[in-house]
Amino acid sequence: MQAGYAAPVRVADFADQPCNIARPIAMVGEGWTLLVLRQAFMGTRRFDDFQSALGISRSLLAERLRRLVDAGILRREAYRDEVRTREQYRLTEKGHDLYPVLMALRAWADKHESPEEGPIALYRHRGCGGLTEVIHRCSRCGEELGARDVRPEPGPGMAAASA
Amino acid sequence: MQAGYAAPVRVADFADQPCNIARPIAMVGEGWTLLVLRQAFMGTRRFDDFQSALGISRSLLAERLRRLVDAGILRREAYRDEVRTREQYRLTEKGHDLYPVLMALRAWADKHESPEEGPIALYRHRGCGGLTEVIHRCSRCGEELGARDVRPEPGPGMAAASA
Repeated sequence: MQAGYAAPVRVADFADQPCNIARPIAMVGEGWTLLVLRQAFMGTRRFDDFQSALGISRSLLAERLRRLVDAGILRREAYRDEVRTREQYRLTEKGHDLYPVLMALRAWADKHESPEEGPIALYRHRGCGGLTEVIHRCSRCGEELGARDVRPEPGPGMAAASA
Repeated sequence: MQAGYAAPVRVADFADQPCNIARPIAMVGEGWTLLVLRQAFMGTRRFDDFQSALGISRSLLAERLRRLVDAGILRREAYRDEVRTREQYRLTEKGHDLYPVLMALRAWADKHESPEEGPIALYRHRGCGGLTEVIHRCSRCGEELGARDVRPEPGPGMAAASA
């Protein structure tokens, strides 16, 4: 059917798909982006600290940070060091809300990719010291659900997203 | 400090880091890989169906599928069509266990990237019809937890992972 030149499809093109799984993948489902987020959750704020923690090139890091700022996931904030005013990057609330994504990746890795001895790191509730967990469940009956237990259907935003 | 040529750091290099967040990012935290997984959860099994659903190039798709098979997330399975024996790709149990990662991405997108009208798609428990949700909580006291409520510490596998 198709004649002539067709531009290759890019992951970023999925940001426009009417699918609430494809869209966040297009936004944050990329290695360096997720590693920058992991680092932000570990408390890293300054460009140079991201750079030395990740070993990423400065241009690549600047581009990923800019995209995360544009998406409202990080915000730039001025701070004053000994010499001058500089910028740091802080997670917004929207950014903080990505924590379950990283914890879901971790939970999977703990189950399937841990050394024999057990998980590489443990994540504890500061309040009571219990280990944290990620649960995909039914909001009505509370049952834990796998993919086979779930039926997707078009939601109220489908028409607007497809337009 | 560093003299001479240094190979650029790649996301894949983080597969060896002693961090249970960085490792799964290096394995599956990549756009096409996550989109292939989304498609697999939607029931896609055949190479040509992945290809037409995603619009990805055949070589890129073959490479991503091979990596997922190597990681034990998909398995190749022979099936017989009208003409000959062909291959399809099925999620393993390890693959199925990635469902909460996709659902965590979805839950975030539903909250922060939905059209005004609401979520693009709804995911319902087949059993009772309730909507599904992803909860990051304390396994001891049950409290829902954000990043600020959590303290990471080295786990039993840290020494082996760092070796």
